[in-house]
Amino acid sequence: MAASAETRKVIVLIGDGMADRPHPALGGKTPIETAHTPNMDRLALEGETGLMDLIAPGVRVGSDTGHLALLGYDPYAVYTGRGPFEALGVGMEVRGGDIAFRCNFSTVDDNMVVVDRRAGRITEGTDQLAAQVNGIFIEDVQVFFKESVAHRGALILRGPGLSPKITDADPHAEGATVHEVQATDPDDAAARRTARIVNQFVRLSYEKLRDHLVNRKRIAEGLKPANIILPRGAGVAPTIPDFNSHHNLQGACVAETGLIKGIARFVGLRVLEVPEATGGLDSDVMAMGRKVAEALQEHTFVLCNVKGPDVAAHDHNPQAKVDIIQRIDAMLGWLLTQIDPASTFIVVSADHTTACSFGDHTGEPVPIVIWGPEVRTDDVAQFGERACAKGGLGRIRGKDLVPMLTSLMNVQEKFGA
Amino acid sequence: MAASAETRKVIVLIGDGMADRPHPALGGKTPIETAHTPNMDRLALEGETGLMDLIAPGVRVGSDTGHLALLGYDPYAVYTGRGPFEALGVGMEVRGGDIAFRCNFSTVDDNMVVVDRRAGRITEGTDQLAAQVNGIFIEDVQVFFKESVAHRGALILRGPGLSPKITDADPHAEGATVHEVQATDPDDAAARRTARIVNQFVRLSYEKLRDHLVNRKRIAEGLKPANIILPRGAGVAPTIPDFNSHHNLQGACVAETGLIKGIARFVGLRVLEVPEATGGLDSDVMAMGRKVAEALQEHTFVLCNVKGPDVAAHDHNPQAKVDIIQRIDAMLGWLLTQIDPASTFIVVSADHTTACSFGDHTGEPVPIVIWGPEVRTDDVAQFGERACAKGGLGRIRGKDLVPMLTSLMNVQEKFGA
Repeated sequence: MAASAETRKVIVLIGDGMADRPHPALGGKTPIETAHTPNMDRLALEGETGLMDLIAPGVRVGSDTGHLALLGYDPYAVYTGRGPFEALGVGMEVRGGDIAFRCNFSTVDDNMVVVDRRAGRITEGTDQLAAQVNGIFIEDVQVFFKESVAHRGALILRGPGLSPKITDADPHAEGATVHEVQATDPDDAAARRTARIVNQFVRLSYEKLRDHLVNRKRIAEGLKPANIILPRGAGVAPTIPDFNSHHNLQGACVAETGLIKGIARFVGLRVLEVPEATGGLDSDVMAMGRKVAEALQEHTFVLCNVKGPDVAAHDHNPQAKVDIIQRIDAMLGWLLTQIDPASTFIVVSADHTTACSFGDHTGEPVPIVIWGPEVRTDDVAQFGERACAKGGLGRIRGKDLVPMLTSLMNVQEKFGA
Repeated sequence: MAASAETRKVIVLIGDGMADRPHPALGGKTPIETAHTPNMDRLALEGETGLMDLIAPGVRVGSDTGHLALLGYDPYAVYTGRGPFEALGVGMEVRGGDIAFRCNFSTVDDNMVVVDRRAGRITEGTDQLAAQVNGIFIEDVQVFFKESVAHRGALILRGPGLSPKITDADPHAEGATVHEVQATDPDDAAARRTARIVNQFVRLSYEKLRDHLVNRKRIAEGLKPANIILPRGAGVAPTIPDFNSHHNLQGACVAETGLIKGIARFVGLRVLEVPEATGGLDSDVMAMGRKVAEALQEHTFVLCNVKGPDVAAHDHNPQAKVDIIQRIDAMLGWLLTQIDPASTFIVVSADHTTACSFGDHTGEPVPIVIWGPEVRTDDVAQFGERACAKGGLGRIRGKDLVPMLTSLMNVQEKFGA
């Protein structure tokens, strides 16, 4: 529906992995605490702040599980293995009930012994190899396969009577023979059927790939051929309530990585592309802001994920993290000139902590500010991990955020009389 | 049992919907923040404060689900549909296992087509019509029916082998024929039996009401007859642990609305009537206070719900809400002269936020103070939404309150060794 002038709207601006630990190179401050962020600080001053555990205190959250929580889902119920989320991440359409796998292009010899699990870390031609098996049927099951980065790919099986309760084809070791996939419970007919289909898929991949032009060329160049596809980590895509109808919102997403876009699409958000968004430290953050402002015309909930802070932290680079946070703040400042403050809420937060010192995600909570009409302001005047710890929101959970917002937006159904 | 002099007791004083959002007509303060509340402020100064989410952050809670939580029950487990709580609200006795329905008196023509779902919004005589079907048996099932406000009523079926898994008789539309009630699962024998009994009830209501004197008179006056009763929203009353024996308390309730009294009675509290309590803004709040002091002689837990703040907020009237909060505060001041501070705890809080701006319940947390011997005092010196956000209790859940109190009262069983 088209939103009326009085319709309350919200922008949820997520700096991916933006929260951090105090860092010696920053004089014991975190990157957010170090960065010059006048706009985030204004939101803190005028809004309500707190700390948020995406899942629970101390839990090291991924970007996928973190965003599921931010979108109101319980990751423990919805995150059914890496397979479906790998497939979402490479841009495949995933439907509830699909059985999905992470896969490697590998190299086997004539006896099905794995010579190289990563097919010589192949970087080119996997799209042509993937096309050999994508879209085929095995029995009555439709097979979708898409290449990912390097030797990686994702497999989806779609059809009736399938189960993820099967073992891996990938033996997880070189020198071992490709494993015959089996049901983990021999009495589970759906699992037996799924195992049979995966085994057929693996054999078929070998038949279709071994003499493929891409591999003949590799062999001629002394490279290992990507002559088989080995699935692992079967998971069933969860059947979840549609975000928009469940929360009475019209949701859009502006993001950079395939994984966040995939999750957004899967829950029912409209994904808006920004060609200038690279997912790296060179990304055009302001272009993302312009897309957010545009999205707000026709949507009441706009999630924006800027990947840069996480990239800088994985690189152990606190100064680069400070820089990208300042660019996000500048984009926020521009957004504040575009919105109607009488009807628009803005949330700034992160999907997890990524510690520059450790170079990976850690379990500390993230700071959060909710700014907009009628929020219960507090005394906090700066946005940051330690400043927000004194805020009026206290310590909340990721999955509480959407209900808190739909309440403020006056669109939530009442529970009871 | 009679309480000894040292027995610790607690008064839980709930201003219904007392919490609010900052309001422009109050200079950006909430009604509690605006009201002159020296006694609530004294409790905050001398006690421990915090914020409470009745169910979870952001959830828009009803008075029914809010009070279930306040009394230590999990509303997601106990709140089994509107039917049982509608019946409780009109003062019917409800037992665990009863199947209860919301009903309308409606008008049908000779072909069972619904002409008016609300029987011309009938206001008089429904008690006489209800008496025609209340107390009868259908097969071995006892039927209880009571009229509520205007065209509304509640139906209870009590007997063995019943199920709420049935469809509605009410077609929810005028011009449609009365629906034949059916089991939602045709293989569920209890549901089939319940559907058959409800269908008999509906036919019986038509036979007993169509020529009733009340309806003959309405037809003569050109009004639509209330010639049938149409049930909807079947729910089974939950079987729950008795409040008193579960918590080692002797509980009483002083309240104004049928719904709160009904819930209190259902969980096992003794409901004490206050004739001067009207449930409106004209209620004699001080008379309720006198009843609370009296109840404290023979009980260790006294829940008192004053409805006025919620009424004022539903009326979009922040000044009226300020006034009634001040009258609650005055009642609290008098209570403080009546109790033994060495053995009495007082809790002041709300069952949900009701925003004067929105005119309905919203999902923000409510302020809470726990005052009494040995509580861990904090620095908060005022009772209010934002002041209590800095309190020592942090942010708690509604269902945690009773355990927190029974621990302070030294009557809770230890979990473990």
